[in-house]
Amino acid sequence: MPAVESLHHLLSMKDVTNEKIHDLFSLAETIEKQQNPNKFQGRFAANLFLEPSTRTKSSFHVAERKLGMEVMELDRADSSLTKGESFYDTLKTLESIGVELAVVRQSEAGLLQKCTKGLNLSVINAGDGCGEHPTQSLLDLYTIHEHFQSFKGLHVCIAGDIKHSRVARSNALALRQLGAVVSFVSKPEWQDPAIGRDYISMDKAVKECDVLMLLRIQHERHEKKEADISYLEQYGLTKEREARMGKHSIILHPAPVNRGVEIDSDLVESPKSRIFRQMTNGVTIRMAVIEALLKGEL
Amino acid sequence: MPAVESLHHLLSMKDVTNEKIHDLFSLAETIEKQQNPNKFQGRFAANLFLEPSTRTKSSFHVAERKLGMEVMELDRADSSLTKGESFYDTLKTLESIGVELAVVRQSEAGLLQKCTKGLNLSVINAGDGCGEHPTQSLLDLYTIHEHFQSFKGLHVCIAGDIKHSRVARSNALALRQLGAVVSFVSKPEWQDPAIGRDYISMDKAVKECDVLMLLRIQHERHEKKEADISYLEQYGLTKEREARMGKHSIILHPAPVNRGVEIDSDLVESPKSRIFRQMTNGVTIRMAVIEALLKGEL
Amino acid sequence: MPAVESLHHLLSMKDVTNEKIHDLFSLAETIEKQQNPNKFQGRFAANLFLEPSTRTKSSFHVAERKLGMEVMELDRADSSLTKGESFYDTLKTLESIGVELAVVRQSEAGLLQKCTKGLNLSVINAGDGCGEHPTQSLLDLYTIHEHFQSFKGLHVCIAGDIKHSRVARSNALALRQLGAVVSFVSKPEWQDPAIGRDYISMDKAVKECDVLMLLRIQHERHEKKEADISYLEQYGLTKEREARMGKHSIILHPAPVNRGVEIDSDLVESPKSRIFRQMTNGVTIRMAVIEALLKGEL
Repeated sequence: MPAVESLHHLLSMKDVTNEKIHDLFSLAETIEKQQNPNKFQGRFAANLFLEPSTRTKSSFHVAERKLGMEVMELDRADSSLTKGESFYDTLKTLESIGVELAVVRQSEAGLLQKCTKGLNLSVINAGDGCGEHPTQSLLDLYTIHEHFQSFKGLHVCIAGDIKHSRVARSNALALRQLGAVVSFVSKPEWQDPAIGRDYISMDKAVKECDVLMLLRIQHERHEKKEADISYLEQYGLTKEREARMGKHSIILHPAPVNRGVEIDSDLVESPKSRIFRQMTNGVTIRMAVIEALLKGEL
Repeated sequence: MPAVESLHHLLSMKDVTNEKIHDLFSLAETIEKQQNPNKFQGRFAANLFLEPSTRTKSSFHVAERKLGMEVMELDRADSSLTKGESFYDTLKTLESIGVELAVVRQSEAGLLQKCTKGLNLSVINAGDGCGEHPTQSLLDLYTIHEHFQSFKGLHVCIAGDIKHSRVARSNALALRQLGAVVSFVSKPEWQDPAIGRDYISMDKAVKECDVLMLLRIQHERHEKKEADISYLEQYGLTKEREARMGKHSIILHPAPVNRGVEIDSDLVESPKSRIFRQMTNGVTIRMAVIEALLKGEL
Repeated sequence: MPAVESLHHLLSMKDVTNEKIHDLFSLAETIEKQQNPNKFQGRFAANLFLEPSTRTKSSFHVAERKLGMEVMELDRADSSLTKGESFYDTLKTLESIGVELAVVRQSEAGLLQKCTKGLNLSVINAGDGCGEHPTQSLLDLYTIHEHFQSFKGLHVCIAGDIKHSRVARSNALALRQLGAVVSFVSKPEWQDPAIGRDYISMDKAVKECDVLMLLRIQHERHEKKEADISYLEQYGLTKEREARMGKHSIILHPAPVNRGVEIDSDLVESPKSRIFRQMTNGVTIRMAVIEALLKGEL
């Protein structure tokens, strides 16, 4: 186990050293080989999703149950929990009734850092607005690691709305820390020099990168189908571009995919795609994070 | 096991042969004799109810848990799951995180038939708008079978809004296929020659039928209480009519009952009524369907 | 076991004799010493919360799961369950699909008393509008008993909106029945002579009482922060007042706390406070209630 202080909560990728990331990967690989390890039978988790996110919530639910934990699902309809009380009191209430792990999604970036002091339960940040979503980063990294074994010298290109993506920020940081080279593909108005300066064209990206990490664009806000087609042609992964990707390269996407916008629909389940594999890995890496937190080994 | 190809999904009664129906009844009878068989411990089901239906959802929940399955409940609040992605992707996502069974209620008739191809999880249609709701049919049939052992020559009369009822359509089809004679009681505007042509009066029905299958009328749309009383008198089951029913005849209703509209309130738990028994049988037959699907024996 | 008739449901504190209260406390103390007793494995509970109450719902959920019960959560979104059918039919439906315990929160005082007759499942009233919430009373009493062992001659002062509080009414009744002396602190407009006549000042209360039971005020309705500060100064527990409380006295509050209104924020986790302990005890006493009901020993 690392000599550095162990984490009681997982709130930000900034708190996770390279050594801890690799420890989590080892643990995840061990978990993958087991049938439902059921290690934490009778211990309670609460999934507190004040903003909807069925995908993440379901993934945590499966991870917790596979570890044998009891799961309570609390959502926006349960706002009575937070009405007129501080978020600290909400978490302290869960602790008082026997909950040992709280997985929290809510909209205020940095809120959890302010209200987890003195708590005797572990908190995982499952997305805090424009802030962080560390287990999403870890599952992306784990999927890359699964394919390439190492990050040293890997070229990862992140494509999409860099500026508004918490995934882009966290992943760029962690990937560089692990030794990868990170570039970006983005419309000029979605670029953000604070995250990175190496913006390239999609045509250059498919030719040069080992990992093409597509981001979801906010399809809901689009008015016209033409915009989608034009986005795919200019910034997305067409079949023609995919044919030019390197032999060992892979495609990632956090899902849900806008088929025909970020990526041609036929490529979603193509050999290079790891899109559904990422979801499978999400369960595994979350099991590893929970196990490490509850054992005080993160 | 039947020589015909086995079903990976249960989407429509049209796919279920007489032989398969009787296999399911045998399995249900076996299950009834067991205490929580717990056969599928640690395997995951997702109940995806995009339209509310607490009764059906609860019944599946109990069935799944009695079989030892893990259950995830997803509902309309979880629409983020379906937002901007095809229903196929939603189901593929569930498959990717480890779900083996999806029970789906949604409003588009025939949708599931279009998006279950290539999936490696089993799907049960739990109601698709005006389309089908096969486990409701199966529980009705099972309740009749429990009482009469055979369908040959049985006279089943279906009473209510035939035209808009998916139960009427599926049940009429399956009952005839199994050898029963089917008649109908309905207001002229609710009759549908595509489902059947043998419309009779309620007075004739109570005298002649073995099974009186009442449908729920859309009580919510009624403006006046007088309309209800008049419906009961003209088309419903009054105490006076019930007294004229055959000695071995039974009464079915899919619930919730509008007491005093389709049926006199005092008859809901009377000796001929199988209304609450249908709910008990619903759990059993759903356990049988799930077991048969997961074993590849449906 | 008491010679009096045992309860099939827990609907009101009026049905619970002193002897039964002490039996529940003994059972709760036994439960506290055990690790998840898991006594009712495979038996089904339904938590039917038609009005939101995450705190109470979560407490029952943990209690039920620790006893090994299966839990179904039904809420307002599940109103289809109650639409067009009597509450009796809703409960009978749950009974029919195998549910043995229904925990119900809904808004009509006295409704459950009217519709539990003839049911073959146990019902716990978890709050019926302005009516009762017996397990809240029991957890308050259990927390007092844990500290003082006896109620004889104890001075309990209840402070807040006496008139509109179901907690105040039930607790005053039960405490007197158990031998305690009950007084009240309240604004003139929140006093209710039907509940008690002994109104005193907060300054007198802190000096004389053994238990100070603060009620939550409806903070949401307040317009101005000044009103809060003035409430704390006049009727609330300031740090200065707390310093004048008796050595062995304790502070209770049903939560959520309005920090800085009923009580100074710094006192919420102070040595005299039992506020979070009440939540822990809530799980234990609910386990005792459920066990006693299901065994027919309440």
